Amino acid sequence: MTPQLEFWFEFGSNYSYLTVMRIEALAKSKGVDLVWKPFLLGPIFNGFGWNTSPFVLQSEKGAYVWKDMERQSQKFGLAFKRPTAFPRAAILPMRVALIGAEMHWGPAFCREVMKQNFERDMDIDNRDAVALALQKAGASVEPTLAAAVSDENKLRLRRNTEQAKARGVFGAPTFFVGEEMYWGNDRLEDALEDASLKATAHRR
Amino acid sequence: MTPQLEFWFEFGSNYSYLTVMRIEALAKSKGVDLVWKPFLLGPIFNGFGWNTSPFVLQSEKGAYVWKDMERQSQKFGLAFKRPTAFPRAAILPMRVALIGAEMHWGPAFCREVMKQNFERDMDIDNRDAVALALQKAGASVEPTLAAAVSDENKLRLRRNTEQAKARGVFGAPTFFVGEEMYWGNDRLEDALEDASLKATAHRR
Repeated sequence: MTPQLEFWFEFGSNYSYLTVMRIEALAKSKGVDLVWKPFLLGPIFNGFGWNTSPFVLQSEKGAYVWKDMERQSQKFGLAFKRPTAFPRAAILPMRVALIGAEMHWGPAFCREVMKQNFERDMDIDNRDAVALALQKAGASVEPTLAAAVSDENKLRLRRNTEQAKARGVFGAPTFFVGEEMYWGNDRLEDALEDASLKATAHRR
Repeated sequence: MTPQLEFWFEFGSNYSYLTVMRIEALAKSKGVDLVWKPFLLGPIFNGFGWNTSPFVLQSEKGAYVWKDMERQSQKFGLAFKRPTAFPRAAILPMRVALIGAEMHWGPAFCREVMKQNFERDMDIDNRDAVALALQKAGASVEPTLAAAVSDENKLRLRRNTEQAKARGVFGAPTFFVGEEMYWGNDRLEDALEDASLKATAHRR
């Protein structure tokens, strides 16, 4: 059994940025297989009666979060610029990420979109931005965009989001090792360790 | 200049438990002086329009928090039992902690109260529980209780809470290195590192 970690993420989520940029290398070093699970935070937050991010609704925590992001990005050696729009809509790139989840270019595409949002303060929910990220990730642009906006793929993203809700996901990033849930970039290392140990125990 | 860290905490706060049990040894190993700052979370939460902990108000996050507490306690080698009452009122022990903040028995007293709440599932906001914790910490019981419930000391706790609010504190534990704020047990090590580096820079 290969250790496996499900990684649930959203391009609008600032703490997902820290994880998207780090997770592939960390998982490789632990020998853990990643399953990329794009979902939409908007419907999850709406279910709580919120019309936007809790970092916007709760201004004290919001003020802190951007300071924390500066320090955490520096700690991980990542560039960071506070986005002038937050949280950014990300439906088109999330649909593409769902296609990418089964393709070799998926992780690189996700990193490019995250850099657009959190390093370069660019809007990400448009064809130009997504095409640029696909090109940089070495993916074919037009066929991928066509597949992304197919009814079938739109429905898959909705189903992912419903599944997240049903499993108790309340924010991003969230990780699952089997049914064990971990929330937040701060728990990435713990979740990888858990996945790694469980696979070892299974082999014995 | 000796590096200094302000530690703002609440006995009702589960993540404060993880920090109270760890902070004295960690600060000592880093050569950082601790300033213990008890305050009440209730008035802070009331200011946000909440009548209890966000872990109670938001049931999805609440369900996760107890699972996270189990795992985090195990990681740090701490016992943990989910309290049957949460968040527990803690006004009397918080008043005593304010006296203890300037006494040698303060940190041990705080650990005893936290063990009552999060290891032994005991109510903590009564004279018997507080007297027991004082005894175990090697403090004199009656004089300390008398000082704790003096009007002057009650006012000091209220002022700490007002100061926390004015400085942007929105939860516990919270740390300050000068005016640099850190939130959560997950940031304890970063905050200690910051305090330590700033003192070193100052000495140069």
